[in-house]
Amino acid sequence: MNPIEGHLPTRSPLHDILAPRGIAVIGASADPTKRGYKAMVGLVKDGYRGDIYPVNPKADRILGIEAWPSVTAIPGNPELALICTPAATVPGLIAECGRRGIKGAVILASGFAEIGSEGAELERDMMAKARAHGVRIIGPNTSGLFNLHHRINLLALDNVKPGDVGIVSQSGNMLLSLALEAQHNGHVGFSTYVGPGNQSDIGFNDYLRYLGEDEHTRVATLYVEGFRDGRKFLEVAREVTAMKPVVVYKSGSTEQGQKAASSHTGALAGSYAMTVDLLKQSGVSVVHQSDEILPVAEGLGLLQKARGKRVAVISDGGGQATIASDRLTEAGLELAELSEATRARLRDVLFPQASTVNPVDVAGSTDANPSLLATCMEIVAADDSVDSVFLVGMFGGYSIRFAESLLGDEMRGAESMVDLSHATDKPLVIYSLYAPIKPPALRRLHEAGLPVYDSIEHSVRVLAALGERGLYLAQNHRQSREMPVAAKPELAELFHRAQAEGRDLYEYEAKELLRGHGVAVPEERLVRNEAELTEAVRHFGAAPLAMKVVSRDILHKSDAGGVKLDLVGEAALREAREAILTSCRAYDPDAAIEGVLVAPMAKKGVEVILGVIRDPIFGPVLMFGLGGIFVEILEDVAFRSIPLSRHDAESMVEQIKAKKILGGVRGEAPVDKEALVELLLTVSRIVEAYPQLVELDLNPVIVGADGYAVVDARVIVARDLPANASDKEAIA
Amino acid sequence: MNPIEGHLPTRSPLHDILAPRGIAVIGASADPTKRGYKAMVGLVKDGYRGDIYPVNPKADRILGIEAWPSVTAIPGNPELALICTPAATVPGLIAECGRRGIKGAVILASGFAEIGSEGAELERDMMAKARAHGVRIIGPNTSGLFNLHHRINLLALDNVKPGDVGIVSQSGNMLLSLALEAQHNGHVGFSTYVGPGNQSDIGFNDYLRYLGEDEHTRVATLYVEGFRDGRKFLEVAREVTAMKPVVVYKSGSTEQGQKAASSHTGALAGSYAMTVDLLKQSGVSVVHQSDEILPVAEGLGLLQKARGKRVAVISDGGGQATIASDRLTEAGLELAELSEATRARLRDVLFPQASTVNPVDVAGSTDANPSLLATCMEIVAADDSVDSVFLVGMFGGYSIRFAESLLGDEMRGAESMVDLSHATDKPLVIYSLYAPIKPPALRRLHEAGLPVYDSIEHSVRVLAALGERGLYLAQNHRQSREMPVAAKPELAELFHRAQAEGRDLYEYEAKELLRGHGVAVPEERLVRNEAELTEAVRHFGAAPLAMKVVSRDILHKSDAGGVKLDLVGEAALREAREAILTSCRAYDPDAAIEGVLVAPMAKKGVEVILGVIRDPIFGPVLMFGLGGIFVEILEDVAFRSIPLSRHDAESMVEQIKAKKILGGVRGEAPVDKEALVELLLTVSRIVEAYPQLVELDLNPVIVGADGYAVVDARVIVARDLPANASDKEAIA
Repeated sequence: MNPIEGHLPTRSPLHDILAPRGIAVIGASADPTKRGYKAMVGLVKDGYRGDIYPVNPKADRILGIEAWPSVTAIPGNPELALICTPAATVPGLIAECGRRGIKGAVILASGFAEIGSEGAELERDMMAKARAHGVRIIGPNTSGLFNLHHRINLLALDNVKPGDVGIVSQSGNMLLSLALEAQHNGHVGFSTYVGPGNQSDIGFNDYLRYLGEDEHTRVATLYVEGFRDGRKFLEVAREVTAMKPVVVYKSGSTEQGQKAASSHTGALAGSYAMTVDLLKQSGVSVVHQSDEILPVAEGLGLLQKARGKRVAVISDGGGQATIASDRLTEAGLELAELSEATRARLRDVLFPQASTVNPVDVAGSTDANPSLLATCMEIVAADDSVDSVFLVGMFGGYSIRFAESLLGDEMRGAESMVDLSHATDKPLVIYSLYAPIKPPALRRLHEAGLPVYDSIEHSVRVLAALGERGLYLAQNHRQSREMPVAAKPELAELFHRAQAEGRDLYEYEAKELLRGHGVAVPEERLVRNEAELTEAVRHFGAAPLAMKVVSRDILHKSDAGGVKLDLVGEAALREAREAILTSCRAYDPDAAIEGVLVAPMAKKGVEVILGVIRDPIFGPVLMFGLGGIFVEILEDVAFRSIPLSRHDAESMVEQIKAKKILGGVRGEAPVDKEALVELLLTVSRIVEAYPQLVELDLNPVIVGADGYAVVDARVIVARDLPANASDKEAIA
Repeated sequence: MNPIEGHLPTRSPLHDILAPRGIAVIGASADPTKRGYKAMVGLVKDGYRGDIYPVNPKADRILGIEAWPSVTAIPGNPELALICTPAATVPGLIAECGRRGIKGAVILASGFAEIGSEGAELERDMMAKARAHGVRIIGPNTSGLFNLHHRINLLALDNVKPGDVGIVSQSGNMLLSLALEAQHNGHVGFSTYVGPGNQSDIGFNDYLRYLGEDEHTRVATLYVEGFRDGRKFLEVAREVTAMKPVVVYKSGSTEQGQKAASSHTGALAGSYAMTVDLLKQSGVSVVHQSDEILPVAEGLGLLQKARGKRVAVISDGGGQATIASDRLTEAGLELAELSEATRARLRDVLFPQASTVNPVDVAGSTDANPSLLATCMEIVAADDSVDSVFLVGMFGGYSIRFAESLLGDEMRGAESMVDLSHATDKPLVIYSLYAPIKPPALRRLHEAGLPVYDSIEHSVRVLAALGERGLYLAQNHRQSREMPVAAKPELAELFHRAQAEGRDLYEYEAKELLRGHGVAVPEERLVRNEAELTEAVRHFGAAPLAMKVVSRDILHKSDAGGVKLDLVGEAALREAREAILTSCRAYDPDAAIEGVLVAPMAKKGVEVILGVIRDPIFGPVLMFGLGGIFVEILEDVAFRSIPLSRHDAESMVEQIKAKKILGGVRGEAPVDKEALVELLLTVSRIVEAYPQLVELDLNPVIVGADGYAVVDARVIVARDLPANASDKEAIA
């Protein structure tokens, strides 16, 4: 077994309330169907070592423990309160808890923001009391928490054993499901569980930081319906993932799912694709299916991370080797190309009919000799071209399927695999079709910290997560932060002027901003009158030109007839200008028209789009994709949180499904990816430097074999000025 | 439990050899590590009622049964031989078996076609002997077979119970894996298993027909690496799926997987996407993950098929309701819109905070009253807008999680669900997070034929399969076969001429063929000289024209400079013709140039592609997709086996991912889908009528709001003429 990778230094204020020295159970009950009973049972049965204070005005003792009529009557020093009473009672109780010196409260009741405006009002009232009295809130609308290493089990869950998987789950059923899976698996245990519920106060980022600091937690596992402060979460995740793996399952991958989620936690789900990209950017291991959560958490917790994506498959059946190859390739992994030396070593130990090309198929060589599988794993693990080893087949079941006498050899094989796992820094992922019936050799592997999976599909998810984590840590370690740029006063002035005039940047201003920071924007002229038109013609010469209307009031220039292309000669330009002005005035008689922009036609290339939004959950986010149908129909785009690292920018370009087109199709030369990466980084820096920039759209940018050209640019400006802006009074 | 839907009438010759009255075990052995021992044990232990004839020249008795020195020495009437000896011995043994009157032989040995040319030679020798002596061959390179209802267990698998899932698997490990899953599940049993191995003689289509006829088989389940006669398989599948469900997992979804597969069975994998489309066209339920095979087979075998895709979810946890919604939507299913009456009935029985919008979240209403879940299922099942019911959550575990006293109510709930499953024709799919630990209420459901799944993901695959099957049977039942057309002599003559000249059809001939069967091909003129050019200008008038070279030797016209567009006026046409001829002569000085084609420019619209190939495995197949990058980069295409039904053609158009574009984007009108469907059907009919047509490519076809235009057409002609062709001798 892998040592726990490390922990963050202790800073989270949650340690006191997640590992309290005394607990008040408000609404403690002797009725076995009540949560106030379950919690008492959980604490007593698990042997909680702190003080327990049942609060119930109608009882003297509950489960033999002295009960108190109210929070204020409690004699000792409870640090945490579990509130099992209905929503309406909560604000008052929080105030009492605060006065009694209680630091945190777990609120089980639902009936807050998730039910609508009335509940939201109650939630605000509760939070006002909590802030006034210095009480931190877990929930409301939570299933509670446990901290098994401190014998705190407020859920009174049976059959959960202490271990090193920490869980934060916005669904109580999901926790139950993971606990039952673990019970069935027999080897996974848990450290701390918290249900964040509505996150009125403490949110996912706080819990994650706590798990990052917790010495008992080897891997943090989160089921998320919605973040409150996504940007903070990403920041914490970046810190935690540097120390230990973080697995997130985010629901709401579809509109239907998002609706269902918001109806029960009141959380904004946010765009799924964007959330996944941003989580991965912070080193989080994202799983997309609920039944992959536990296998991936177990694997990331126990196994070495892989240095890369090259997997060696050792299999005792051709069919399953085939399936493994399919799944590995689909998951973006590669079949390692084994060296000739490795293949020779395999040939030395296997039958002649065995295939020593990866996937290695032993073809019967191990039927009477299953420990030979361990030898094969050893051989491929020693190959430099291999990043991880995947055993596929019936190991553990030879003594069942073939002859009982093989048990000894299988146990020796298991021992060799355990030894190999200690000797190598490459992960050994083991799938056995005998996993469901847990034969002795597989039990031995599991006990030694080598998980055995019962599905090829789940195993491959684990391999993919190990590879992604290894690559993330390597690049994260290697790269230095990209240098930010400072705002230039003359460009900041563009924003001030626009804000003063209550408008967004004109296209030519947006382009000035970009040019000012080194972005390649083709030269263009603002033409407001005949004289400027003549001057533009003189300036650009004989090249075909494009002309576009400039108006704060016309957003969709093409629709308004405000764009003319391929214009050659002064007459054509003059005619085009007349046509544009006529058409735009007809389109919107009230539109203020500044003039037209004239610029040379863009060179041929691939159309791409860059967009920036300030997301309400995640803050500034950069989007990149190919233009036209790729964005509109196929939604084939990549997202990164700003600021971007160079790796972020590079990986964005590699991530889109249509990236083949950037590599050159139909005989076209590949586009200049380096210039594109530089553009992404520059846009990221500009967004950092100008807080007044709310949205940015470069659509299209034409990327060619040698550089790119920003053809159109749009910048949306914040309506509320920053405090230090001198012209604040000018704004409505 | 659902009755077995039905069987095909008995016609398959395999009944004798898969349910034989006597079995010879050639290479029977007393060594427990040998297959010749395992097979004997399997037959004896399972109580096979026929005669067993061990053949081994070195033994008198094996497992107490009299052994015979050779096949010819056997006294009785064995119908099947199991050959456990090495590959080299097989051809001779087959001849002996034939002489002894044995009807079929199972060949375990590997070392045939899958290892290369030497093995292929041996396989041909074996097949020659088999044909000469009337022996049918199972394998070679097979793991064997079992037929549990006849107590034939040649694999000597322990712990497999007789049941109604039939399996044909090209991987022995896959069979083992399914058997172990079934053992763990405790409720699935098997009828017949066969490993087809290299399919030298008997192939998947024969085995499938047998399972279709077998009265013990409720659902046929196939793991396929490659078909030998795919067209025949589709034909049989169409017959069998009308009677009972057929589940296929096809490996080789990636190039890596295809390589792995062909190295171990010697089979051609074929295009995965095409295979999947063709299987679905024949009513097969295709699964894409190996761990979905058994859940889907169990569900299709036991549950009602759904009339459609509208699912009602009943959940006791918001998180899992969210996950279920995501997975259902991703799988192409819909959340049923519950009627107001249904919602009122739900409100009557649930707490006020419950959500009665689908997914229904009982929000605590069932905590003390789990049988209420059955009531909710009953309520939604009665809603006409619901096609299937999905229970999600902790049913079966209330008595564990909350209070033991709830067990009685849970058992009543289970009973109500069983009653409901008999009373309704809608499937009830049940996911419980307690499934892994099998509490009593879930055991009761399982015993009554209601499977309980332990994964939301697998449950959704089952729901999707039930919906697809229901819809397939409905449309299959409804539709009549499209009328074929007869070849027209004057058009058949085009093929004869091309064959005689050793070339494919010229573009204008291909278009003549299409026009002759009512396809809308814009009028065009073949221009071979100045006079014809003048005549073409006169004929087409002032419309802009397109011009293309006509040459049997130039396939890529654009590359050769053989295409000019937007030509107006005689001068422009003359110039363009000169330019084309010059450029094409430079491109290929030896090219025979017939002339140029002149036609009006196509109207605006969406570019689509139709292609026909005669696939070596599946025969004539029609491909449809959007033009350009959709085909080239995204491989977004649909395939159907020819002939197409109207439903096939309609579903092709609906299947492509970019179908939104056909619906009209950026303000465009939707395209004329009916015309497109008609075109697909016409092409299908043409391919049926002209066997000399080997390939056809319509690329592009421009589809607009009102009809379409075939812009380019290419037809590849068979080089080997049909026997009745009069000009056969003209061909090299």
